[in-house]
Amino acid sequence: MFEQLGLIGCGLMGGSFALALRRAGLVRRVVGYSQSATTLQQALQLGVIDEAATSAELATAGADLVLIAVPVAATEEALRGIRNSVHPEMLIMDVGSTKRDVVDAARRALAHRIGNFVPAHPIAGKETAGVASADVNLYAGRKVILTPLQETRPALVQQAEAVWAALGCRVTQMTAEQHDSALACVSHLPHLLGFAMMNAVAAQPAGSQYLALAGPGFRDFTRIAASDPAVWRDIMMANADELLAQSRIFRHQLQTLEALVASGDAVALERLIAQASLTRTQWGTGNTSTP
Amino acid sequence: MFEQLGLIGCGLMGGSFALALRRAGLVRRVVGYSQSATTLQQALQLGVIDEAATSAELATAGADLVLIAVPVAATEEALRGIRNSVHPEMLIMDVGSTKRDVVDAARRALAHRIGNFVPAHPIAGKETAGVASADVNLYAGRKVILTPLQETRPALVQQAEAVWAALGCRVTQMTAEQHDSALACVSHLPHLLGFAMMNAVAAQPAGSQYLALAGPGFRDFTRIAASDPAVWRDIMMANADELLAQSRIFRHQLQTLEALVASGDAVALERLIAQASLTRTQWGTGNTSTP
Repeated sequence: MFEQLGLIGCGLMGGSFALALRRAGLVRRVVGYSQSATTLQQALQLGVIDEAATSAELATAGADLVLIAVPVAATEEALRGIRNSVHPEMLIMDVGSTKRDVVDAARRALAHRIGNFVPAHPIAGKETAGVASADVNLYAGRKVILTPLQETRPALVQQAEAVWAALGCRVTQMTAEQHDSALACVSHLPHLLGFAMMNAVAAQPAGSQYLALAGPGFRDFTRIAASDPAVWRDIMMANADELLAQSRIFRHQLQTLEALVASGDAVALERLIAQASLTRTQWGTGNTSTP
Repeated sequence: MFEQLGLIGCGLMGGSFALALRRAGLVRRVVGYSQSATTLQQALQLGVIDEAATSAELATAGADLVLIAVPVAATEEALRGIRNSVHPEMLIMDVGSTKRDVVDAARRALAHRIGNFVPAHPIAGKETAGVASADVNLYAGRKVILTPLQETRPALVQQAEAVWAALGCRVTQMTAEQHDSALACVSHLPHLLGFAMMNAVAAQPAGSQYLALAGPGFRDFTRIAASDPAVWRDIMMANADELLAQSRIFRHQLQTLEALVASGDAVALERLIAQASLTRTQWGTGNTSTP
């Protein structure tokens, strides 16, 4: 049981964490801070936080748990804002979708207090942003990746694992580098493709007529393209090298398929579609080996 | 009320149509034919069809409604199989995802009986194929596009509209050419991208580890990549020119985003992501205008 959660950033991710932590009976008091006064008021009204603080430092004074839930590029500023409140037992986590840049930012901002920081990435989200979308069940059943540093205090890593597990998450550990490579492939690239898909439709004079005919396949395929622009701008910038490498691999596969369509090689085309279909089906049933 | 539905092809699409037609009280008897004896037996056991016929001609003898529900490249053969059963009042439809090739095939196969054919594309589907996935609700609430020919009998077009409307569909009409352009953009391209995405993962040594970290965004984005390989091979081959044109437009948008990520132009990147996000959000709420 934590005495106080200091919540820095009261949007979808932070708000959902506060709600889930409270429902699990793991926190006595939630004090929130947001750069947006409107968000902070809304978080109070929705019962996501108990108290609104006028600064990050005030939100975390006296806290034994701090969650940084801001777009990744704002992590360093947020951590600088709380550095004077850090005490030896404080568990500090983030929820950012990239980890190398967050770790670098944390080293700069926290300096000798870096051992209190456990970088965390819960693989959960929604295409609607903001505290109004906060959902007590957002993290239930989801994976959480922790990327502790050499300096991270082992007791705090254990505590972090216990917190997420108590929210119904499956927790794994890896390095920040491993995290960023993997997520570039299975999250950042799909978002990039989804954004490009919507812009490709919008770029065509008949785009709106085409959209009027789109069905449930299109709906699911492009759901992630409605994601928050500032959040995804930061993620793509922070993980640019890995993302661009993944996009090159993707374009190679796309052009291989295109060439088979263009040449009319139905046999080879079906073989590659069957490989894709099998990979997806096996993943969907929990067998994640690639053929 | 139809006396007899002759169902040629008893898979997901055809099976779902038979189930929905029966529930709507619109058909007295369903006689099915499938090239696969196993499928035909399964369709009987599941109550999707009342009788199994040993040929397409026998399934449609005496039918006043015929549905061709086979992969699009098999349409011509299926129509040749029923041509001797066609009588002046018979309504013949298909459910193919491409229309120009289907219309060409129908002209060749049906010759002077072409007026009985109303090309139809219900925009519905599932990533699981086969009669075992047949679903009485598959078409409810979905769009159906009819692409009647110059020769199509107007009374049969009206009847076709009434049938789909009775199954809960919203029916629109356009030319086969308009259909194929639009669907290349909002359906065939997303499938091509989904297949390429899965193959891009599978092509990497660490692909299976990456997949183990994929979350709900990836799940929805790649759902269509589990689609039936034979069905999608045919669709892509049949609509190759339009599909390749759409893929070129997409790649241009993708490379525009990549260039902004590579150059670190956060402002322009956020603007393009915001445009994509807005286009998707407006579509999702029924406003399909492009910004």
